[in-house]
Amino acid sequence: MNETELKSLLSRIRPADSAAKAAAKERQSKLAKPPGSLGALEEISVRLAGITGRVCNRIEKTRIVVFAADNGIVAEGVASTPQSVTLAQAINMTRGKTGMSAIAQDFGIDVEVIDVGINSDSVPKTILDRKLGLGTANFSKQPAMTRSQAVDALAIGIEAAERAHNSGADALGIGEMGIGNTTTSAAVLACLLNLPVESVTGRGSGLTDEGFALKKRVISDAVALHKPNRADVLDVLSKVGGFDIAAMAGTFIGCALFGLPAVADGLISVTAALAAVRLCETVRDFVFLSHASYEIGYRAATAELGMEPWLNLNMRLGEGSGCPVAFQVMRAACAAMNDMATFEEASINDDYLESIRNESAFCVKTV
Amino acid sequence: MNETELKSLLSRIRPADSAAKAAAKERQSKLAKPPGSLGALEEISVRLAGITGRVCNRIEKTRIVVFAADNGIVAEGVASTPQSVTLAQAINMTRGKTGMSAIAQDFGIDVEVIDVGINSDSVPKTILDRKLGLGTANFSKQPAMTRSQAVDALAIGIEAAERAHNSGADALGIGEMGIGNTTTSAAVLACLLNLPVESVTGRGSGLTDEGFALKKRVISDAVALHKPNRADVLDVLSKVGGFDIAAMAGTFIGCALFGLPAVADGLISVTAALAAVRLCETVRDFVFLSHASYEIGYRAATAELGMEPWLNLNMRLGEGSGCPVAFQVMRAACAAMNDMATFEEASINDDYLESIRNESAFCVKTV
Repeated sequence: MNETELKSLLSRIRPADSAAKAAAKERQSKLAKPPGSLGALEEISVRLAGITGRVCNRIEKTRIVVFAADNGIVAEGVASTPQSVTLAQAINMTRGKTGMSAIAQDFGIDVEVIDVGINSDSVPKTILDRKLGLGTANFSKQPAMTRSQAVDALAIGIEAAERAHNSGADALGIGEMGIGNTTTSAAVLACLLNLPVESVTGRGSGLTDEGFALKKRVISDAVALHKPNRADVLDVLSKVGGFDIAAMAGTFIGCALFGLPAVADGLISVTAALAAVRLCETVRDFVFLSHASYEIGYRAATAELGMEPWLNLNMRLGEGSGCPVAFQVMRAACAAMNDMATFEEASINDDYLESIRNESAFCVKTV
Repeated sequence: MNETELKSLLSRIRPADSAAKAAAKERQSKLAKPPGSLGALEEISVRLAGITGRVCNRIEKTRIVVFAADNGIVAEGVASTPQSVTLAQAINMTRGKTGMSAIAQDFGIDVEVIDVGINSDSVPKTILDRKLGLGTANFSKQPAMTRSQAVDALAIGIEAAERAHNSGADALGIGEMGIGNTTTSAAVLACLLNLPVESVTGRGSGLTDEGFALKKRVISDAVALHKPNRADVLDVLSKVGGFDIAAMAGTFIGCALFGLPAVADGLISVTAALAAVRLCETVRDFVFLSHASYEIGYRAATAELGMEPWLNLNMRLGEGSGCPVAFQVMRAACAAMNDMATFEEASINDDYLESIRNESAFCVKTV
């Protein structure tokens, strides 16, 4: 894929179906409950209708795609965890042994781990090989990647959404594994949002005060060095981004292309979602937020996306670890929409009461 | 059960197992993740260990118990919904047609609906009969119930927890159905928390400005009339409470007695949880909060409980409608605790990489 092909692809994204959304809202208004009392569950059901074109939906088959990549910027000492952990945890993910994957396994959720730039030549075959390099370049000295690598990463991400779509997934969660990627995310956010680095940079996995100060200085210096053009997402991603963020942005775009609800989870994921929305505003219709990350940049990104996360769990693990429960929120929204009685169906008259008077005695059951 | 027996029962409640909690914390510190990065999921796993005495737990079989009752205070015009809806929705609940029950059915969660005071003689047998009256008295004129009725309601609630325990439930959600019960909850909260009525009273199902002003005046007048002794929970519950709130408080007590995690959901449920905690401080160890209710009194009650809800969905339906997803949060917490690798298990050395080099090519799977 080249930039012209990317533009053509973006131009093919269709917004959510407003007629289906209106029909879903109409049904919500008829369900037997105080208007709006199911809050976000009502909004979710309406948005899903917009995506699928159907008033009633199910979130049953779900997948989490994880992009794993290393970041050259860790040479500057911005991360408290050794780089080798990217490979180790990517492998552990394929075996259900990390936070996200242990939870996903319990819920029966598919997990796909994709190597877009792990700094190792020994990546096992259980991880899908889409390697763009042995990590990005150290962006304190040179751009993290070339512009054409950024486009390649987007294409890899779009392809992952297409695979999920073809597999019959009802929703796709988008996660990552990459030491140093809270640094790249903060750099990308500072550029895209035109905000001071301090206001979007957190401690990641647990930096000391000294390390934290260094991290902010390194990002500020890099932004000053490369002067990314904030109106040009590819310029921002290639100069101070990471292979993971770029590929994730591609997956959000792919979800919009293939009509798949996309769950953004955590700081890096919402940064990628924002990058995707900046490339094509319509992508916003397909993005849902799982949990409120503890990382400071998260709020800035989601405020710009104009959405509220559903889960308040003080999590900051990454990986897509909030997606499994987020899928259950979506499932609950669908169940209420599909199965609740309307006001008409819910009214109980004397004849009805008479007809059930001799039903069997009470026993607890799955209703 | 009389008051002496209640006191004896309360004295038998044992606090969470601190050794099991310490062992659970120890295991959390060894799991391969930045310390604390799973946030509330870590806290949940530690609290569950305290309840069961085991480091690893599962939340698989779950139940929601719903207490349905009418409130005499609705004669004053404090509710925007007709009283007959209590019976209608209680019946619809047993058929999976209300918000909570539609979601519970989809997730395979047991639902038990108990009549503790529906204003009808035609309650079908699918609803468990523990009727204490045809609704409470109008507490703007006389106490809502006698002190001994309040004790009876607590006993009914305790019995429901015992039934759930005996059925093998891993957690119990506590919900309600009763027109007028945001009024009774606000009255109980104002007394227990010694707060102005205005600061704990919301619009319920959707009162007009006029109805809302009336609701606050009715509650204030009733509190002034009865002067409930806020140090005496039974005095508060019997004078301005409801059969549902009292029974729910009993279930929280029962969960503590039988070692069952209890999920408080919504305004009425957290009010009952607070009443239970005031009767026996140790009950607190067994209470978990599902979603942040939109109702204003909710925050006051949960601040006093010293807990944060997990879900931010702007819901205000009641019924226990947040419990199904809350159970999934607990399930996720258990999966992470039980199945994540420790730091030792997570490290990937060269021998290990060599051993998996010839694994089959990548395919998406449930990890």
